[in-house]
Amino acid sequence: MDRIEQIAKQLKADGLDAALIMSPVGTCYLSGCYLLTQVVIPERHAYVLVTADGETAYLVCNIEERSARKHDRIADVRIYVEFQEAPAAAAARLLRDYGLVNGRIGVERHALPAAALDVLSADLPAATFVAWDEPFARALMVKSAAELDALEAAGRATQAAIERGFTGVAPGSREIDVANAILSGIMDAGIAPLFNVFTAGPSMLEAHAAATTRRLAAGEIVRVDMGGRASGSHVLSDMARTAVVGRASAAQQRVYAALYDIQQRVMDAARPGVKVSTLYRLCADRFAHHRLPFHMPHIGHGMGIGLHERPMVSPKDDTVLEPGMVLNIEPHVNVPDANESYHIEDLLVVTDGAPRYLTTPTAELIEIPAP
Amino acid sequence: MDRIEQIAKQLKADGLDAALIMSPVGTCYLSGCYLLTQVVIPERHAYVLVTADGETAYLVCNIEERSARKHDRIADVRIYVEFQEAPAAAAARLLRDYGLVNGRIGVERHALPAAALDVLSADLPAATFVAWDEPFARALMVKSAAELDALEAAGRATQAAIERGFTGVAPGSREIDVANAILSGIMDAGIAPLFNVFTAGPSMLEAHAAATTRRLAAGEIVRVDMGGRASGSHVLSDMARTAVVGRASAAQQRVYAALYDIQQRVMDAARPGVKVSTLYRLCADRFAHHRLPFHMPHIGHGMGIGLHERPMVSPKDDTVLEPGMVLNIEPHVNVPDANESYHIEDLLVVTDGAPRYLTTPTAELIEIPAP
Repeated sequence: MDRIEQIAKQLKADGLDAALIMSPVGTCYLSGCYLLTQVVIPERHAYVLVTADGETAYLVCNIEERSARKHDRIADVRIYVEFQEAPAAAAARLLRDYGLVNGRIGVERHALPAAALDVLSADLPAATFVAWDEPFARALMVKSAAELDALEAAGRATQAAIERGFTGVAPGSREIDVANAILSGIMDAGIAPLFNVFTAGPSMLEAHAAATTRRLAAGEIVRVDMGGRASGSHVLSDMARTAVVGRASAAQQRVYAALYDIQQRVMDAARPGVKVSTLYRLCADRFAHHRLPFHMPHIGHGMGIGLHERPMVSPKDDTVLEPGMVLNIEPHVNVPDANESYHIEDLLVVTDGAPRYLTTPTAELIEIPAP
Repeated sequence: MDRIEQIAKQLKADGLDAALIMSPVGTCYLSGCYLLTQVVIPERHAYVLVTADGETAYLVCNIEERSARKHDRIADVRIYVEFQEAPAAAAARLLRDYGLVNGRIGVERHALPAAALDVLSADLPAATFVAWDEPFARALMVKSAAELDALEAAGRATQAAIERGFTGVAPGSREIDVANAILSGIMDAGIAPLFNVFTAGPSMLEAHAAATTRRLAAGEIVRVDMGGRASGSHVLSDMARTAVVGRASAAQQRVYAALYDIQQRVMDAARPGVKVSTLYRLCADRFAHHRLPFHMPHIGHGMGIGLHERPMVSPKDDTVLEPGMVLNIEPHVNVPDANESYHIEDLLVVTDGAPRYLTTPTAELIEIPAP
C-alpha cells in the first residue's frame, strides 16, 4: 500500500475528510519535492492536501511552480503569489475547491503557525481543524524499499567522508581543516550538508558547536555529528563519530569500548515486537553496568526526510517496532574531568529478525594524524 | 540604544508587558546564541522573554544549556528536559516566574505553532497573547555597526568563493564540481552553507535547484544563488551570480548588461527617506525600458540573521529607508526561448547619502573555463 493510500485509510479511520500538511518534511514525503525556500524562508508555506478518498493537491509559491511540477506524484499543482495573498488564504481556497467547506480537516498543530490557523478558520468558518500530528507522524515510520536504499547510500557516503576526513588530513591541522574535509566529502557524494557539529578543546562539552581555527593537539578527543540531505531522494544522513589526535590512551580506549558495547547491545535489541522505550531502558542499564554517567533524554530516533522522526528512543515512546522502521542509535557520554566527550551514531532498519545495519559501527577510536 | 532597550520601549508603546520570542532568528538576535537544533529539530523550541522593563530570560532544551550559557547577553538561562515537558509549558512557567500571569504578552503569531499557543493559553488563562510579529520585525531592521561589519565580511568572502569557484575549475567540469568548489570556498571562510542553488541546462529555469553530475557545455549560462551562516556573528551571506561557459555571445552580453543596469539604478536609489515600494516600481520600470519580462513578486529583501527580513522590496512594503537598513537587490530574468536565466544579487546598507555597497556588483558575465 503506498503512503497516500495509507494516509487516506487513516483519515477515514479517524473520521476526517482530509489532511492539510505544511511541514517541509511532511510535504516532501507526499509530493516528492523538497523546496529549499520552504525551510530557509519560513513564511513561504507550501501545503499538500490529501483527502480521505486519496485525492491530492500541492500548493506552492509561484516562484517554486516549476520545481513542484517536475515531480509527478501530485498532478494538481496550485500556486499563490507572495505578498499578494497569504499562503493560508490560498490553502483555504484549495480546501473550498475540494468541497471541504464543512470538512473535518487534520492539520499538523505542532508545525502550523497560529496566524495560519487563524486565516484558515476565518476563511472556512464551517470547517473544523483537528490536530493530526501523531497519526501523520506514525504513517511515515515504515520506510519503503527505495527510501531504505537512499538512507543506506547517504549514510555510507557520510561514513566514508568522515573516515577519510579524519584520517586524511595533514598532521597539525586546524579544527576547520578536518571539518571542511569531511563536509567536502559529503558534498562530493551529492549530499548538501545540513549540520556540521564539531566539538573539541574549549567546545568539547557543548552539544552542538562548529569547528574553529584552533590547531588540534596530540592526545585530544574530537567529536563530530554531521550529515545532510541527499539530492534526488531528499533523505538525510546523520552520523556521530569520535576520534583521537594521535594514539588513544588506555583510559580513552576503555571509555570508547564501553560506549561501543552499549551501542551494539541496543542496536542488536531492535527487533520486531520490541517497544522503543525498552531500548532506552536497556541503554540506561548498560551505562550503569559500565559505570558511565547517563543523562540522555533520548538515545536515538527515527529518521528519513526529517531528522527526528518517530519513533523517538525515549522513556515515554512505547512504539512497538515493526520491519521497515529505521533507528539512529547514538549513545553519548561526557567525561568532564578529562574534557572529553564520546559519541557514536549508526543507522539500522528493523527486519523480521536481526536488525540490518545501514551504516557500519566503528569498533575503535578513529585516529587523526598527530602534529 | 541597544536592541533590548529598543524592544522594551516598543513594548511599552504597544501597551504590552513582555514579548515571548521563539523564532530561531528572533532568539538569536536577542541572545547572541544560534542553536542549530532549534532549526533542524523544529519541535525543540527555545524562547527569549523580554519584559517592558528590559529584563530578559532565555529558555532552552537542557541539551543546549552549555551553548546558551556561553553567551553573556542573557544571564537568566532556564532549561526544560525534552520528552518530559512540552517546551511551551516551560515557557508558561517562565512567564509565571516573571509575574506575568495576568500579562499582555507579544508573540510571533507567524512562527509560534498553534499547539504551543494552546499550551500557553491553557497554562496561563488570565494572560493575553497578542500578535507582535510586525513590531518585532521592524525592531530588527536597523543593523548595528558590528552586524554591518559581519554582513560585509560574510558577503565579500562569499563573493570571492563564487568568483574563484567559477573561474578556477578545470575545463569540462561537471555542475557539481563548480558548485562544490564554491561551497568549499565558503566553508573555508568559516561560513556554514545554508543554500546551494545551482541552475543550468535542464534545471536552468527552476528557481531553486541543486547541481547535478552533468558536464557543462560551451556557451551555456549557469546561475548560482548561494550563501550561508557566518560562525560567531551568525549573520548570513546571500549572493546570486550568473556565468557563461567560455565566451559570452553578443546576445548574452546584452541581457546581462541590461540586468546590471537595472541593479545599479535600483541600488543607487536606496537612500534615506525613500519607500522600498518605490524601489520595486523603479525596478519594474527599468525592466520595461530594457524590454525584459518582469514577473518578480519582490526584487530584494532585508537580511541579517534571517534570510528574508524586513523590509521586503515588494509593491506593498512602504517602509521608509533609514541609515543602517540593509538590502539585497536581486533582479532576475528568465529567457525561456534560449533556456537562459540571469540573476545578480548584491548587498547594500543605507547611509545618510549614497548607499554603501557591502558586496561589489559584477559588471560582466563571469566566464567558466570551457571544455
